[in-house]
Amino acid sequence: MRRRARFHAVLLAGGSGTRFWPLSRSGRPKQLLPLGGADPLLLATWNRVLRIAPPARVWVVAPRALVRDVRRMLPRLRPDRLIVEPSPRDTAPAIALACAAVAAADPGAVVGVFPTDHVIRDAAAFSRAVRKAIGEAERGALVCLGIRPDRPATGFGYLRCRTRPSGERTVEVERFVEKPDAARARRFLRSGRYLWNGGMFVWGAARFLDELRRTEPGIREAVEAHRAGCRGAWDRARKISVDYAVMERAEGVRVVPLDAGWDDVGSWDAAARIREEEGKAPRGAILVDSAGSAVFGEGGRVVAVVDVPGVVVVDTQDALLVVSRRASEKVRAVVEALRARGREDLL
Amino acid sequence: MRRRARFHAVLLAGGSGTRFWPLSRSGRPKQLLPLGGADPLLLATWNRVLRIAPPARVWVVAPRALVRDVRRMLPRLRPDRLIVEPSPRDTAPAIALACAAVAAADPGAVVGVFPTDHVIRDAAAFSRAVRKAIGEAERGALVCLGIRPDRPATGFGYLRCRTRPSGERTVEVERFVEKPDAARARRFLRSGRYLWNGGMFVWGAARFLDELRRTEPGIREAVEAHRAGCRGAWDRARKISVDYAVMERAEGVRVVPLDAGWDDVGSWDAAARIREEEGKAPRGAILVDSAGSAVFGEGGRVVAVVDVPGVVVVDTQDALLVVSRRASEKVRAVVEALRARGREDLL
Repeated sequence: MRRRARFHAVLLAGGSGTRFWPLSRSGRPKQLLPLGGADPLLLATWNRVLRIAPPARVWVVAPRALVRDVRRMLPRLRPDRLIVEPSPRDTAPAIALACAAVAAADPGAVVGVFPTDHVIRDAAAFSRAVRKAIGEAERGALVCLGIRPDRPATGFGYLRCRTRPSGERTVEVERFVEKPDAARARRFLRSGRYLWNGGMFVWGAARFLDELRRTEPGIREAVEAHRAGCRGAWDRARKISVDYAVMERAEGVRVVPLDAGWDDVGSWDAAARIREEEGKAPRGAILVDSAGSAVFGEGGRVVAVVDVPGVVVVDTQDALLVVSRRASEKVRAVVEALRARGREDLL
Repeated sequence: MRRRARFHAVLLAGGSGTRFWPLSRSGRPKQLLPLGGADPLLLATWNRVLRIAPPARVWVVAPRALVRDVRRMLPRLRPDRLIVEPSPRDTAPAIALACAAVAAADPGAVVGVFPTDHVIRDAAAFSRAVRKAIGEAERGALVCLGIRPDRPATGFGYLRCRTRPSGERTVEVERFVEKPDAARARRFLRSGRYLWNGGMFVWGAARFLDELRRTEPGIREAVEAHRAGCRGAWDRARKISVDYAVMERAEGVRVVPLDAGWDDVGSWDAAARIREEEGKAPRGAILVDSAGSAVFGEGGRVVAVVDVPGVVVVDTQDALLVVSRRASEKVRAVVEALRARGREDLL
């Protein structure tokens, strides 16, 4: 009987976005914000993976600009477990860099890759699914966690399963499917054969690196050269997602269905919904006849909303947003207007 | 032929209120706010009366707490024309104090009394009406400026005219009528016999003081004693409006109809309406799909409103309000909530 592989968790702390302006800024992405409840999403993810891995086996990949914030937010993160991503080159190079580091520290490691920009409400179900995925990975599979859809979302990639995934049973992935249009998304939902691709993966570090050598040898080489201290090597890594770089081209990709209250927290509306579930009265907020409205802020200012239901108010030191929940994706228009006015200082 | 009396304007800068929270505070009432456009209401009133009276004949009655603000806002106000109201005792004592001061300086003076908490869009029509009122006052009348109603408002007192007031013709006032209910207000509007009492009066200073001696001798005595330096005398003056104290009981009260775009600016909704007429884009505001929304503020912060029509956003250093225009009188509920939380510092 072979020795059980040790599990390492890799948290991806990079990424940017404007959907949570004005709370998120170029130097402070969504992951650092407490959108899911009391804790910032990164910290919540850290706490969640500690159910499965000890702190010494949790790694964080972060851009240089976030290193200080990450260290401050995760004081138990071992300094040598913080991997700096020199520049954003999508997920394949970042994950390859992390897997190479983990494999160097622990050659037989199984790695779980977790984005830090979403919410998972049921940490126990999450742990169960990851443990199941670890078992599959130990048997050599590249494993996805696939989120069971509850609506015909057009904002996510899908995993088409070989057989209908039922319960927590692991199944084989037949195909990765890009974000569908609304009609296809409805068909996917009806068929019961599709899961959302939430970007969470579990695999043997060495197995993944082998696969990468086959599918994207340039990335593998760039990562090795970068680890060897070769300046500029990182920028030669192809900018590509791990889905395209490896998963779509690999054999033996399996998926563990995840029913753990996953939410990508993709808009202020979603953040408000999660805030409601938490049932917390917003600090310093006075809501009068304003059902479904929520206040986010950091100024400590008193915020009163009177007879305006269904809005999100976001209060920061230098900018203020009032946005209807039904159209919260339109925040982009504000970001564009600020850019047009040369107000990059607010972005 | 007798010598033409000289006209003095008295601006009433006292008053308090919570309808413009959070921009108005106990130490900074509505009069000091630029609700009507670029200028604060007090300054706009000052500029308006300068069409009829030179600066040396404009007086301001203000509570002690506002003296500094008034001086700063009206640098051309003569120091001896600023009358301190020791404590708020409604309009009768304040006006009596002003008339006594004016009469002492200029015994034959005709005085115009003007609140400073409203907007008058047509300054020329205002001047015309005041000049007409001055003529009536010179012939011994106590004159009101009566605003022609354009809706069955329940928030104002009414003047019932002896005959239907048409055009700018002066008519006799038959009766002062308190704020009516909606049904009476509709009857008033239909009858064409009623004007709104906007609290603007014109009369000979001596004539008014004579009338006051007859109707409320206690106020007259308290004012004289106060002017003679008797401490505590002011607090013996009855707290009563000039309508009750004098106008309702006097003979020969006349009214000049005023069609000058008067607006009492009674709510954030009214302030937004006036702002719209001015056609000014609010500074630092970004409105996306938010017709009829307006931003008021002083923080210099960027304020973005996205897909939320018909609201007023008021941004101050320590408090923020988002209120629907259709229910902007509910701001009171916020003030009450703050009081209940012991946050008098924000009121």
